[in-house]
Amino acid sequence: MVEVRAGELVAQLGGELLGDPDKLLRRIDGLETAGPDAISFLANPRLQPLLQTTEAGCLIVQPALRAAVQGRTAAILSDDPYLYYARLSRWWAQRSRTAPAAGVHPSAVVEPGARLHPQASVGAFAFVGRGAVVGAGAVVGPHSHIGADAVIGAGSRIAAQVSIGDGSRLGERCVLQGGAVIGGDGFGFAPAAGRWEKIEQLGAVRIGDDVEIGANTCIDRGALGDTVIGDGVKLDNLIQIGHNVQVGAHTVMAACVGVSGSTRIGAHCIIGGQVGIAGHLRIVDRVQIGAGSKVNRSILEPGRYGGIFPLGAAGTWEKNAVLVSQLAKLRDRIRALENRPD
Amino acid sequence: MVEVRAGELVAQLGGELLGDPDKLLRRIDGLETAGPDAISFLANPRLQPLLQTTEAGCLIVQPALRAAVQGRTAAILSDDPYLYYARLSRWWAQRSRTAPAAGVHPSAVVEPGARLHPQASVGAFAFVGRGAVVGAGAVVGPHSHIGADAVIGAGSRIAAQVSIGDGSRLGERCVLQGGAVIGGDGFGFAPAAGRWEKIEQLGAVRIGDDVEIGANTCIDRGALGDTVIGDGVKLDNLIQIGHNVQVGAHTVMAACVGVSGSTRIGAHCIIGGQVGIAGHLRIVDRVQIGAGSKVNRSILEPGRYGGIFPLGAAGTWEKNAVLVSQLAKLRDRIRALENRPD
Amino acid sequence: MVEVRAGELVAQLGGELLGDPDKLLRRIDGLETAGPDAISFLANPRLQPLLQTTEAGCLIVQPALRAAVQGRTAAILSDDPYLYYARLSRWWAQRSRTAPAAGVHPSAVVEPGARLHPQASVGAFAFVGRGAVVGAGAVVGPHSHIGADAVIGAGSRIAAQVSIGDGSRLGERCVLQGGAVIGGDGFGFAPAAGRWEKIEQLGAVRIGDDVEIGANTCIDRGALGDTVIGDGVKLDNLIQIGHNVQVGAHTVMAACVGVSGSTRIGAHCIIGGQVGIAGHLRIVDRVQIGAGSKVNRSILEPGRYGGIFPLGAAGTWEKNAVLVSQLAKLRDRIRALENRPD
Repeated sequence: MVEVRAGELVAQLGGELLGDPDKLLRRIDGLETAGPDAISFLANPRLQPLLQTTEAGCLIVQPALRAAVQGRTAAILSDDPYLYYARLSRWWAQRSRTAPAAGVHPSAVVEPGARLHPQASVGAFAFVGRGAVVGAGAVVGPHSHIGADAVIGAGSRIAAQVSIGDGSRLGERCVLQGGAVIGGDGFGFAPAAGRWEKIEQLGAVRIGDDVEIGANTCIDRGALGDTVIGDGVKLDNLIQIGHNVQVGAHTVMAACVGVSGSTRIGAHCIIGGQVGIAGHLRIVDRVQIGAGSKVNRSILEPGRYGGIFPLGAAGTWEKNAVLVSQLAKLRDRIRALENRPD
Repeated sequence: MVEVRAGELVAQLGGELLGDPDKLLRRIDGLETAGPDAISFLANPRLQPLLQTTEAGCLIVQPALRAAVQGRTAAILSDDPYLYYARLSRWWAQRSRTAPAAGVHPSAVVEPGARLHPQASVGAFAFVGRGAVVGAGAVVGPHSHIGADAVIGAGSRIAAQVSIGDGSRLGERCVLQGGAVIGGDGFGFAPAAGRWEKIEQLGAVRIGDDVEIGANTCIDRGALGDTVIGDGVKLDNLIQIGHNVQVGAHTVMAACVGVSGSTRIGAHCIIGGQVGIAGHLRIVDRVQIGAGSKVNRSILEPGRYGGIFPLGAAGTWEKNAVLVSQLAKLRDRIRALENRPD
Repeated sequence: MVEVRAGELVAQLGGELLGDPDKLLRRIDGLETAGPDAISFLANPRLQPLLQTTEAGCLIVQPALRAAVQGRTAAILSDDPYLYYARLSRWWAQRSRTAPAAGVHPSAVVEPGARLHPQASVGAFAFVGRGAVVGAGAVVGPHSHIGADAVIGAGSRIAAQVSIGDGSRLGERCVLQGGAVIGGDGFGFAPAAGRWEKIEQLGAVRIGDDVEIGANTCIDRGALGDTVIGDGVKLDNLIQIGHNVQVGAHTVMAACVGVSGSTRIGAHCIIGGQVGIAGHLRIVDRVQIGAGSKVNRSILEPGRYGGIFPLGAAGTWEKNAVLVSQLAKLRDRIRALENRPD
C-alpha cells in the first residue's frame, strides 16, 4: 500500500501545492469515484463541473483553475494535469509493485554463449538462446523466449510468454506485453504451378528505444533487410506488422491494426483501432487515420483521414447498402434528368 | 470411446423416448453425416427435409415432429433440441475426455504464499505467483502463468499458455482458451513534447462466473479501477477489450472484435465478428451489432444495428466507391435540377 | 556467413549463368540496396529501370533481358526470377541457420505413450502429451504444447509457444509460427433462459501437408466433425478460423482475416488482410477477395470481389458517410424529379 503526503508528491513531481501539505493520499482515482484519501486530476475541460462534486482529497488542475480549488484540503497546480497524472502513475507503480529480482530463475534455461547483465532478471521457464544479450535492468518474463543472437536493451521489460525471434533487436526501456511475437516469418511465397513456394525470411526485426508493444501483437521479420520500429513507437494489442514495414518514431497505433509488407509509415502518426493499411505504401509524418478505415493508397499530406460505412439501425443501413450498390444507376438517372429538354 | 443406450441418455438428460431404449449410440453427428450408430438433432426448421434421408440411429426433435420420427429405431422428443444437444455434448465430453488430475505437475513452479485447493490441477510448466488463489476443481493449463495475487475461481478451466496478470480475478466455472492474455497493460500515454509518456495501469481485470474467453483474446487491466466482464459473458478468439471497459452479463462477442477503453456495453448484447467499438461509449442492454460494423457513437436503444460496405465484383464495387466519394456532387446536381424552373 | 560462387549457385538451382562463375556472393538483397557482394533479382517489370543503377554483383533476370545484363560481372537467366529467388532464399537459409538438433531437450516433458521419431527435435519446456506422434525431422519449438493424441507430420516445424490441441493432426512439411493456437474450442453456445450453455466441441483440427500458419493465428476444433485445412494452404498472422470451416488446397489468407463457423472456402483462393467472412457460406475455387472486405453471402463464381468504404480526408469522408445515410432521400428526390411533368 502506497501512502504519501501531498507535500511529498509535489517535492518529487513538481507543481504548486495549495492547501495542506500533510494531506495523506492512499490511491489515485477518477473525479467521480475518488474519496477523501484519493488524488485525482482534471484533464478534460468538459469534466470541469465535477470539480463541484468530487470528494477527492487532492486535485491536480491547471493554474487557471486556482480559484475553483482554493477552498479544498489540497490541490496541485500544473500546466499539464494529464502529464502530471502520467508521472504520478509511474511514481505510484514503482512504490506499489515489486520489481522482479535481478538474476536467473532456477527453472530458466540460458544457453551457453548468452550474455546476461548481472542486473538483468530472467523469469521462470524463460529461455535465452546462444549469443543473445540481455542488458542492465532488463526483465525477461516467465515463459518468454529470447532467440539466438537477439538483443534486449537495458531497462526493457518483457512480460510473460513473449517470443523474440533469432537475431531481433530491442532497444532500451521498451515494454512488451504478454504473448507478443517479434520476428516470426514474414508472409512470402512465390507461385509455382498452382502451389506456393516459401520464401525464407532472412531479415530480422529492429526495434528502437522506449517502444511499447501490446499483448499478442505480431511483428514479422524482414524478407531481405529488417522490419524497423522507430523510437518511442507505441503499439497496442493484436496488431500485425508485416515484413519490411517501417514505422517512424513516436507513431502510435490502437489495437487490431494490420499493416501489410514493405509499407513505410512516418513519424508522429496516430492510427486508430482496426485500421488496415495495404502493402508497399507510404504514409508521411503526422498523419491521423480514423478507427476502422482501410488505406489502399499512399498518404502524402499530413492531416486527418478516414472512411467507414455509417452505422445504422438494421433495416436502414441495409437499405443504404443496397442503394450504394445502385449508385451508378442513380447517377444515370440524374444525368437523364439533366439531359431532359427544359 | 463412449457407448450409450438411448434409454440411458433419456434417463439422464430428460425428454421423451420413442422407439428402442436399447439402441446403442457411439457418436453425435450432423443429420447429413450421421450413421446408424450416431445420435443427431434437428434444431433448424429449414433442415427438416433431412429427416427423410438421415441415417442417424437416434434423432432429437421437437414434440411437434412426433409423427415424422415415429417409425425410426429411436428418437427423443424435447422442446429445445439445440439445448438438448448442448447438454448431450457436455455429457459426452465428460465421458470421452480425461479430466486433468488434481495436484501440481512436478515441472510447475508455485511460489510461496500461493494457495491451491487440494482439488485444483496445475499443469506442466505452469507458474502460480505469490498470493495467488486457485479454487476447488480449477485447472491451470500447461505453460500458463497466474500472476501474483490473482484469483482463479472454483471449477474454472484455463488452457495452455494463458496469462493472468497480477491481481486479476476470475470467477467460477470460467473457460479460457489458449494464449489469452488477461491483465496486460491498458494503452495509456500522455503526450509530452512530441513523445508519449507511459501511464502505468494501476487497476486490474475482474471477470464474473461462467465466462468463456477465446484463444489469444486480450483483456487489458484498468488504468484506475478495473476492467469488468460480467457473469456469463462469452468472448470468442482474438478479441481486444481495452482498459476500463465494462461488459454486461450474458453478452456474447464473435471473434476479432475490438472494444476501446472505458466503453460500457450492456447485458444480453450480441456483437458480430470484427466489430469495432470506439472508446468512452455506452451501449445499452440487448443491442445486436452486425459483423464488421464500426460503432463510433453510443447506442441507447435496444435493437439490431449494422453498417458495412456491400460486397461486389471488383469493377462494380470500385465504381460504387468512387461514386460514394462524389455523393456531395450528386446531391448538388439533384438540387440544381430541383431549382430548375418548370 | 554464407559465401558462394555464382557458378555453384547455378549448378545447384539451375538457370543460365552469364559472366564470371567465380563471382563471390555473400548476401541476397533488393536491387536498390544490393552491393557488389550481393545477388539480387528483377521480378517486377516496373523496377526494370533499376537495372541501370543497381550495384548488385549478380542479377537474376528473365532471358528476355539477356542484353540488359550482358556487360555485368555475373547474371543468371531464369524464366521465373521470383521463384528462383524463393528457392535461393531456402538454399541460403539452410546454410545460414542452425537446424535444431534431433532429440529431446532435457527440460521438455514427454508423457508416457507419446511416440517421437528419433530424428524429431523437441525444444526447451516443450510438452508432448500421451499418445501424441511426432514424425521424422519434425521440430517442436520451445514452450510449445502438443496435446494428447495429436499428430505432427514428418518435417513440420513448430515455432515457440504454439499450442496443438488434443487429437489435432498436422500434415508433413508444415510451418507454424509462434503463438498459434490450433484446436481451441469452437464458439458454440445454446441459449437457455437468457443465459448461454456451452456446447462442447467434440471434433478436432485436420491440417494437410505443406501448410503455413502465422503467428497467433487461431484454428478452432470442430463442434462435430473436424475443421479442415487443405494441402498447401498459407495463413498469415492473427487469423481466426472458426469451427468446422473448410479451407481448400493452396488458398492463401493475409493477416487478420476472420472466417466464421462452417464456411467452406474453395481451393486456390486469395483472401486479403482483415477480410471477414460470415458463417455457413460457400466460396468456390479461385475467388479473390480484396483486403478489408466483408463477405456476408456465398460467392459461387470465381473472380475478384471487394467492397470497402473509400478513404478520404476527414471532413470529406464524414460528409460522404452522412450522404450514404440519406441515400433513400436522394433517391426519392430523383424520383420526384422524374415524375415532374415536362
